[in-house]
Amino acid sequence: MKRINVEKCAHMLKKEDNILILTHAHPDGDTLGCAFGLCRALHKIGKKARVICADEIPAKYSYLFKGVEKQEFNEEYIVAVDVATENLLGALEKDYAGKINLCIDHHPSNTGYAQNLLLVADAAAAAETVFKVIKAMRVTIDKQIADCLFTGITTDTGCFRYASTTSNTYRAAAELIDLGADNGRINRAMFETKAKTLVALERLAIESMEFFSDDRICVITLTQEMYKKSGSNEEETEAVPPLTRQQEGVEIGLTIKEKTDGKCKCSIRTYESVDASKLAGFFGGGGHKQAAACKFDCGTEEAKAMLLEKCRELLSK
Amino acid sequence: MKRINVEKCAHMLKKEDNILILTHAHPDGDTLGCAFGLCRALHKIGKKARVICADEIPAKYSYLFKGVEKQEFNEEYIVAVDVATENLLGALEKDYAGKINLCIDHHPSNTGYAQNLLLVADAAAAAETVFKVIKAMRVTIDKQIADCLFTGITTDTGCFRYASTTSNTYRAAAELIDLGADNGRINRAMFETKAKTLVALERLAIESMEFFSDDRICVITLTQEMYKKSGSNEEETEAVPPLTRQQEGVEIGLTIKEKTDGKCKCSIRTYESVDASKLAGFFGGGGHKQAAACKFDCGTEEAKAMLLEKCRELLSK
Repeated sequence: MKRINVEKCAHMLKKEDNILILTHAHPDGDTLGCAFGLCRALHKIGKKARVICADEIPAKYSYLFKGVEKQEFNEEYIVAVDVATENLLGALEKDYAGKINLCIDHHPSNTGYAQNLLLVADAAAAAETVFKVIKAMRVTIDKQIADCLFTGITTDTGCFRYASTTSNTYRAAAELIDLGADNGRINRAMFETKAKTLVALERLAIESMEFFSDDRICVITLTQEMYKKSGSNEEETEAVPPLTRQQEGVEIGLTIKEKTDGKCKCSIRTYESVDASKLAGFFGGGGHKQAAACKFDCGTEEAKAMLLEKCRELLSK
Repeated sequence: MKRINVEKCAHMLKKEDNILILTHAHPDGDTLGCAFGLCRALHKIGKKARVICADEIPAKYSYLFKGVEKQEFNEEYIVAVDVATENLLGALEKDYAGKINLCIDHHPSNTGYAQNLLLVADAAAAAETVFKVIKAMRVTIDKQIADCLFTGITTDTGCFRYASTTSNTYRAAAELIDLGADNGRINRAMFETKAKTLVALERLAIESMEFFSDDRICVITLTQEMYKKSGSNEEETEAVPPLTRQQEGVEIGLTIKEKTDGKCKCSIRTYESVDASKLAGFFGGGGHKQAAACKFDCGTEEAKAMLLEKCRELLSK
């Protein structure tokens, strides 16, 4: 593995052709924005390029690839964007592990699996770096490319909310808006507009909220009954866990989700005082310091009791 | 009334002393961020200045005035910030109406009540313009001033989410972060952490949601009973109106708030298809294209009926 800089990365991409771009599985706005932004840029300078992803791309991201020509070719150069480890490629891992020529990423945990790695760990989104690469390639950035890159930046920063957002992030956003990115529409689609079914599910979730340990723990339990009642499903539940830690004083937020087989899993959200990945680790799960998850072979009530016991232990330290 | 530009405004402030700064009633992050940012800047260049507000300042904004010296003096120059009309001064109106020397604002509906008006209507927040004024005054902006101005910008744009946010807004945010603004902490305090009473009120608000006209209109009614039940109060209701337009398909969101005297007022939120200030205007109110407000001399049910009638008329066009 060789660490490269933006100029070198741009130079390499300009030299290559028939470029396959890989995103991570369960794709989010950053990996997709990077992939389609880069793909569009490569097409503009006459390269053949296409994007692949192990999982279906959620409908709300369809504007990212609208109008992108579907090109068939034998891939000669393989690029991964916003992919920290090869196993995050999901079903693509078996075909491409060990074959990736270039990775553009911002995760400090990147394992260095690619031949060439452009890693900017203090970028809030990988799209910030892809933006620099495209500029260094001297591609004229159009509205569509700007929309892709803005999407990557805004989704990975929770709409510029997280502490990871730097002045460079805001400056990149400003530039992309001047290049045509439709910030109002994108932010609305990504953060404001919720499906009716999700609004209904959130309503039930909020009604189900329970507080423990002097309100330092908040628990939401999502049952199959609630999915039925709201017309929602597990795919929509990613919006729920943040609700658990929004009340002042809450240090641990647990979202326990009942599965169809009666077993359950739990999404954990914390603030600085508690390490979510440690809590998840007790139950065989894992994740980040403030967002983690684990699975249970029992029902929601039993899981809740076990989780609360561990939570109380952690809070008493 | 004379329209002035940033340079002229800075020049005038540098000439004056014993400056009283007025915010609007029911203060939000923009009016308070402007007022305390400007007050701190004036103190730095040796002027006497203080901020007054008709209503109590919510505790979450206390960092804005932390360490600001409380100065007593006979006011010689009166400045209003982010105040579109004199009656928005609330209880201060009777003392200061007709006496305001300078207004810095961004509301297109500003009535021109001040002797001198610096109105930048395409600024997403009044704080964007106050920032320019302070720079034009050649004040060295410190972390505290930067925090105040960043707060104004982020609160008035819903954390850079609304379509009113321009590339200039993002650029101003980037500059303020470079000057020391603690964007991560401010955004968390303003947008992530909610008082227990507010969480309880939101829960009741969400339960009270009603949908009309094929779900194109969403209405939340906040009653005195709900304030009592949640331990919340009207000061906390600014978080509620955005909830009305979050469901896909909603074009008009109405939050009708019962006052202690049984009368009510309404916060209106819309998307592009409907002009909120026009709807508010029918009832003697005003505001922006996508966020406006108006008052009623009747109860919530009667107001709702009148509002819905006008909404249907607007939607049928």
